[in-house]
Amino acid sequence: MRPAKVNLEEKFRKVDTTWTPRIVAEVNDFFVKIVKLRGEFVWHRHESEDELFLVTKGEFTVRLRDRDVRLREGELFVVPRGVEHMPVAAHEAHVLLLERKSTVNTGDAGGERTVAPEWV
Amino acid sequence: MRPAKVNLEEKFRKVDTTWTPRIVAEVNDFFVKIVKLRGEFVWHRHESEDELFLVTKGEFTVRLRDRDVRLREGELFVVPRGVEHMPVAAHEAHVLLLERKSTVNTGDAGGERTVAPEWV
Repeated sequence: MRPAKVNLEEKFRKVDTTWTPRIVAEVNDFFVKIVKLRGEFVWHRHESEDELFLVTKGEFTVRLRDRDVRLREGELFVVPRGVEHMPVAAHEAHVLLLERKSTVNTGDAGGERTVAPEWV
Repeated sequence: MRPAKVNLEEKFRKVDTTWTPRIVAEVNDFFVKIVKLRGEFVWHRHESEDELFLVTKGEFTVRLRDRDVRLREGELFVVPRGVEHMPVAAHEAHVLLLERKSTVNTGDAGGERTVAPEWV
């Protein structure tokens, strides 16, 4: 496939659910995903995978066990592997994720909110 | 080190040169870098490393041998491994790079524009 450029706003318009990461690009063994956040997710951690969050619209909080990290548009944060976290968004936020292809959205928690990411 | 959030605008304010990628985050074996572009770079390719460009301010063009890919704010493009490319920016553009830690900015071309990336 001839690689195409990705317009993030256009891709976000095609996502009509929250907490369902969708793949927009691959870079070696990493996926770049976009996700809409609203409300609370579940506490979880990724044993061997760091996870990057970059806010492209709105704001949200990464809750850690010892503190909250509040992220606004144009800010990014990497949750190190093994660290428990729970994303929380009072209002809808648009977030770009960067994580290994092997990363599962709910990490070690599993459960009904686990989804296999698809391309958008 | 306790991971801190990164405000991209603040980081860009600390970069006073063009074509010198600076590291702002690491995600497993990848670095997230920021770079200011203005003018022409050199034709080069990365043998085994894909390279992602995401424009956070302004616009620039990724020249490929068979076409030009013009990127504006909020757009990203992945240059697949092995593909020759040359970034060109008529005006200063702010770009986020995502690439393996092993990636050298000038790829196979080498030369005087090669720089070892430092954190900012």
